[in-house]
Amino acid sequence: MLNPKLLLDLLAFRREREWEQFHNSRNLAAALAIEAGELQEIFLWAKDDELNARVEERKIEIEHEVADIAILLSYFCNDLNIDIDAAVRKKMELNALKYPVEKSRGSSKKYDAL
Amino acid sequence: MLNPKLLLDLLAFRREREWEQFHNSRNLAAALAIEAGELQEIFLWAKDDELNARVEERKIEIEHEVADIAILLSYFCNDLNIDIDAAVRKKMELNALKYPVEKSRGSSKKYDAL
Amino acid sequence: MLNPKLLLDLLAFRREREWEQFHNSRNLAAALAIEAGELQEIFLWAKDDELNARVEERKIEIEHEVADIAILLSYFCNDLNIDIDAAVRKKMELNALKYPVEKSRGSSKKYDAL
Amino acid sequence: MLNPKLLLDLLAFRREREWEQFHNSRNLAAALAIEAGELQEIFLWAKDDELNARVEERKIEIEHEVADIAILLSYFCNDLNIDIDAAVRKKMELNALKYPVEKSRGSSKKYDAL
Repeated sequence: MLNPKLLLDLLAFRREREWEQFHNSRNLAAALAIEAGELQEIFLWAKDDELNARVEERKIEIEHEVADIAILLSYFCNDLNIDIDAAVRKKMELNALKYPVEKSRGSSKKYDAL
Repeated sequence: MLNPKLLLDLLAFRREREWEQFHNSRNLAAALAIEAGELQEIFLWAKDDELNARVEERKIEIEHEVADIAILLSYFCNDLNIDIDAAVRKKMELNALKYPVEKSRGSSKKYDAL
Repeated sequence: MLNPKLLLDLLAFRREREWEQFHNSRNLAAALAIEAGELQEIFLWAKDDELNARVEERKIEIEHEVADIAILLSYFCNDLNIDIDAAVRKKMELNALKYPVEKSRGSSKKYDAL
Repeated sequence: MLNPKLLLDLLAFRREREWEQFHNSRNLAAALAIEAGELQEIFLWAKDDELNARVEERKIEIEHEVADIAILLSYFCNDLNIDIDAAVRKKMELNALKYPVEKSRGSSKKYDAL
């Protein structure tokens, strides 16, 4: 998913610090959820019409949280040998079956409630 | 971050279903956290020495959760005009300052406790 | 926090199944976050004016998620010897200092931005 | 779930600050998940045999996070008219059916895999 050179740099960053020992699948998944919670926290309590201003004000922080998520996802997929692009492609095909355009257009319902 | 053609397909998928109306920054961040929780749930209660078997048994499900996270992250960054690779590069540079190799090698401490 | 008899029943439920071995602090905290994500999922993508209908439609599921959170919080606090009422009382006093009425009335800002 | 006097004080705290307007079901559920993520963050990367020391070192912070979760859960249940003790009692009865002692003793498997 990331630029291959960037992924190599991330792996070198981790290796130099000998952090592989902490990065099992459970801990990486936990870290991902924690970082996603931090991203979410930025928008908490905002009214809908305040969201754009919130994004403006806290853009740098948002970029940091996004980066943390992308980094953790990259480590996770590297370690478990998951090809993110292929996984996304396959999931999109499944979603196309679960959410046919005619039934799901303009609806936020889950597929089992369509 | 994703292959550009894949990102275009994801955006078309969403446009056809008129789902942009549900995808504000807050909701996408919430969805990311929820999906990360589902990924994490796969490893819950497992002992360390059971993690590899867990990965084997539930590989397809793991790939689906990873795909969901990558899809949501891609929408989020597309909509907020964030370049994921650039954000990761910048965050890695910051992390290099916060976690110098000599101080952080083999340690899981946060930078403010190093 | 829970009725003392109910807490005793929860502890007996766990003991009979020999589940204490899975319930360390990290796993209970992870389970709490996962269940909170499931609760949150119920409201995902809903517009503000759809929230009441969502609550009506999915009340039983909401009660189940709330119960899971309360059960996990009760195990966590039991195991770590935390008195929830005392912790809440102390936190409310801290919050009163961080959020004085005059400054925080009608505002969703965090204390460090007031 | 909380001591009734404490719940009344929490409701007064919120009313004085006119925060009910931010506390819809979705936002409270989001806040719960975010706080549970913060609790979880305290244990992140710790090895199993470091968990007790982690609890000792960060007991006050843990109590604060627990309090935040209990406060948000109390607001949520108050606003949605949910009796936590009754919900827990009902869920425990359901769990007893899903996890019969003989089948689930010493096992961390989900009921559908037992």
